[in-house]
Amino acid sequence: MTPPTDGQAADNNDHLVRSDNPDHPANLIPSLCAKFWKLGWVTGTGGGASIREDDLVYLAPSGVQKELMKPSDIYVLSLTAQAQSLSQRQRVYLRRPAAHKPSQCTPLFLAAFTRRRAGCCIHTHSHWAVLVTLLLEAQGPGNDREFRINNIEQIKGFGRGFEKSGNLGYHDTLVIPVIENTAHEEDLTEFLEEAMVKYPDTYAVLVRRHGVYVWGENVHKAKTQCESLDYLFQLAVEMKRLNLPWITDIEPTTPKKS
Amino acid sequence: MTPPTDGQAADNNDHLVRSDNPDHPANLIPSLCAKFWKLGWVTGTGGGASIREDDLVYLAPSGVQKELMKPSDIYVLSLTAQAQSLSQRQRVYLRRPAAHKPSQCTPLFLAAFTRRRAGCCIHTHSHWAVLVTLLLEAQGPGNDREFRINNIEQIKGFGRGFEKSGNLGYHDTLVIPVIENTAHEEDLTEFLEEAMVKYPDTYAVLVRRHGVYVWGENVHKAKTQCESLDYLFQLAVEMKRLNLPWITDIEPTTPKKS
Amino acid sequence: MTPPTDGQAADNNDHLVRSDNPDHPANLIPSLCAKFWKLGWVTGTGGGASIREDDLVYLAPSGVQKELMKPSDIYVLSLTAQAQSLSQRQRVYLRRPAAHKPSQCTPLFLAAFTRRRAGCCIHTHSHWAVLVTLLLEAQGPGNDREFRINNIEQIKGFGRGFEKSGNLGYHDTLVIPVIENTAHEEDLTEFLEEAMVKYPDTYAVLVRRHGVYVWGENVHKAKTQCESLDYLFQLAVEMKRLNLPWITDIEPTTPKKS
Amino acid sequence: MTPPTDGQAADNNDHLVRSDNPDHPANLIPSLCAKFWKLGWVTGTGGGASIREDDLVYLAPSGVQKELMKPSDIYVLSLTAQAQSLSQRQRVYLRRPAAHKPSQCTPLFLAAFTRRRAGCCIHTHSHWAVLVTLLLEAQGPGNDREFRINNIEQIKGFGRGFEKSGNLGYHDTLVIPVIENTAHEEDLTEFLEEAMVKYPDTYAVLVRRHGVYVWGENVHKAKTQCESLDYLFQLAVEMKRLNLPWITDIEPTTPKKS
Repeated sequence: MTPPTDGQAADNNDHLVRSDNPDHPANLIPSLCAKFWKLGWVTGTGGGASIREDDLVYLAPSGVQKELMKPSDIYVLSLTAQAQSLSQRQRVYLRRPAAHKPSQCTPLFLAAFTRRRAGCCIHTHSHWAVLVTLLLEAQGPGNDREFRINNIEQIKGFGRGFEKSGNLGYHDTLVIPVIENTAHEEDLTEFLEEAMVKYPDTYAVLVRRHGVYVWGENVHKAKTQCESLDYLFQLAVEMKRLNLPWITDIEPTTPKKS
Repeated sequence: MTPPTDGQAADNNDHLVRSDNPDHPANLIPSLCAKFWKLGWVTGTGGGASIREDDLVYLAPSGVQKELMKPSDIYVLSLTAQAQSLSQRQRVYLRRPAAHKPSQCTPLFLAAFTRRRAGCCIHTHSHWAVLVTLLLEAQGPGNDREFRINNIEQIKGFGRGFEKSGNLGYHDTLVIPVIENTAHEEDLTEFLEEAMVKYPDTYAVLVRRHGVYVWGENVHKAKTQCESLDYLFQLAVEMKRLNLPWITDIEPTTPKKS
Repeated sequence: MTPPTDGQAADNNDHLVRSDNPDHPANLIPSLCAKFWKLGWVTGTGGGASIREDDLVYLAPSGVQKELMKPSDIYVLSLTAQAQSLSQRQRVYLRRPAAHKPSQCTPLFLAAFTRRRAGCCIHTHSHWAVLVTLLLEAQGPGNDREFRINNIEQIKGFGRGFEKSGNLGYHDTLVIPVIENTAHEEDLTEFLEEAMVKYPDTYAVLVRRHGVYVWGENVHKAKTQCESLDYLFQLAVEMKRLNLPWITDIEPTTPKKS
Repeated sequence: MTPPTDGQAADNNDHLVRSDNPDHPANLIPSLCAKFWKLGWVTGTGGGASIREDDLVYLAPSGVQKELMKPSDIYVLSLTAQAQSLSQRQRVYLRRPAAHKPSQCTPLFLAAFTRRRAGCCIHTHSHWAVLVTLLLEAQGPGNDREFRINNIEQIKGFGRGFEKSGNLGYHDTLVIPVIENTAHEEDLTEFLEEAMVKYPDTYAVLVRRHGVYVWGENVHKAKTQCESLDYLFQLAVEMKRLNLPWITDIEPTTPKKS
């Protein structure tokens, strides 16, 4: 962290978002969001991303066109200072952008950072995610709370789970819980946390008629898992259109040679 | 406004379209149109965009490849001078490009600027907009005049309406009126104005078999609302293909904690 | 034309493909093809483009990755010299690239240049064009020889026809003839020429299970008409999936005011 | 090969991946993978590419975001040294990147290089490839082992086969074998090799629920054949949705003139 060098009051800590390193969170969040905008994940001003480095959490603001985001738009908070604040809802920011409001995804990102030790959390409004939650909803109560798919190679893109090493296998079933959307985004937090408890090995939670939250131990894992999941959501919708089932019983093919 | 510095007659006011600021309307309209071309919204020479700054209105010309537009292609007119001209159909341009013809969308853009105090108005020929008007038409008279969708998170991307603060909520119903297309684009104007009166809180009007007009108080709001609307149009077509209804009765999910 | 300045034999006329002007045909064909590659029109090595300036015709070569094309890849021939050659099939090139073979589309491009005085001709293998020819084929003999669509605003992107001024109207029917594909591309030429005679006002000919040829008086018109046509092909496929008819009987909406 | 010039131990042979030539395999693999990422072929960390120049094989590593790959990420091995190693499974790399693990596609790429003298092999997880294998699977045993399509112009993008000159014709049937996926990617190798024996003229093998491997004598042929194949896979899925058959009996259209 370089000391503040501009005329702003030292306590706005603008130095926290200045770096020549393109992988610094304050540079990486804008470049990731620009990529996500082109993928159709963060249309309008929906969706966002957040990165944690040790105690510091970097957040994209609310209401910004994601492909135009700049490092100076980034919020920074300290997890320790946040935990120490008297009211958990009162955000204690080390650094705030000049205009903008904080992202309403903030408590959900923080849940991934504090409960799953995630290094990065991404929120998308991908069409494919929304359509999958609608297709599940149409199956009726009891069948609408989980997205399940197996026997697709891309499933190997996901880790086995929290504090487990290695990835899922081709024949494993990927299970992503679905929570119902709430009128106010911050009210999703308790349901997301419930889902994390009930599905301790998931790296994502779908939100009905809204989108998906995906996290990972670091930016690489969060971003690649988010891509693999959106790939599977799109594949699932295409499969549904062609009457192909998401869950199948495939006999493993074993090699003849040792 | 810098004084004219080139050899052209001073009364062509070329200085009105020259600026180093990428957010100056004469620079922003070309960069927005290039973005819209990649999104498939302004294919061929259809669609366009216009920006108002106080009394000045900046317009993309007719018949230009949208991804190749330059600041020197931009028309500028004064709303006051236009209102004072004896015949409203006679356009009083402060600045005209060397070649080109004025956009036929001009009176529709002006309706948004004068009746809704819009700062920006966008017109797209998006496939999804056209398909939504066709799906509504197929429902028969009486059911074909409004696009209605609710219980989708992206609805929160829209303002509550003219001179109202805040945005629509997740459970609100987004209502976009549909007007029938006319043989000549300028003849749409009275129908667009009728729709603005009948639907005072809308920020958009669909045109059957043609596309959509979307506006907002400023470029940010017009562009993000246009994106969110196209997202919803595409989602609506995908939902229709999968027999999922656009209007549903969802019980709100309330948080357990205070 | 600047005189040859490099060590190559003067009769290879490399100066014909060297220019600092980005709109010079030898620069424009590569930049258009790169754009068409991104649109999915010239996948693999299929498709191509050609530009005529007075007596000179510039052609993309065969078998080149379209997004990697360079001005030095371009063939140049003279229409007059070609007409004077003893055998019409013997191409008389003023300039040839060092490697590569000439495009098999060449006689088809020349048909547009000599019979329609086109300034540019584009050939795409667009999925949407191929699917439209397949949907027509499925309607059976007698109904499979023309793509017809009306009452879609984008139809206004097309000129009224050869040596006619103005564009088609919203209520007009766009008619694009379909010819059957042949085993060798150059054998399409007589069928394309037949279609030009039978449909004198068309600017395009669909080739069954193959793609489409689109031309225009200049690059702007060929390119924008090609875009508008691909838009309509894609819309037509989407409409077919949703059981929406391509030909409708819409009562014109007349303005109330004068 | 330029001698090593940096401080690293000479036996890591970093000079093998350094070049100013954009077509050097260590530069070309990253640029190709960035292009493939945009096409949706190498989402998450799935898929990859490999190039052979004489005895040297250049490979993309495992687990890298394909659009961020750099020349320093590339593995290099010698086919001769590999053949001489006591255990074929023990890879003998001339050059390894500092971090990363070798790609699990390596034995499959090597099969294309050693058995088909390929100069380039590409592996994609394209949705369209996966969906085609699922549509075939749904046809039941006996009908699910080959993707067959004919009478589509894009078929001409494929060579006639190993050590045969010229390309397939418009009326020829393109046949791509399908092998079943295995839990571990390297176990596919024997099945891929079996398919190469059974289908000696194929340039590709589909892997059920996984993707496709495509090769060619050089980068140009591998990449253009991969594009043409993905075009045909996408077309096939669209045709299936519209109930259009992949195999038809079309009477060739013969030219009237000689």
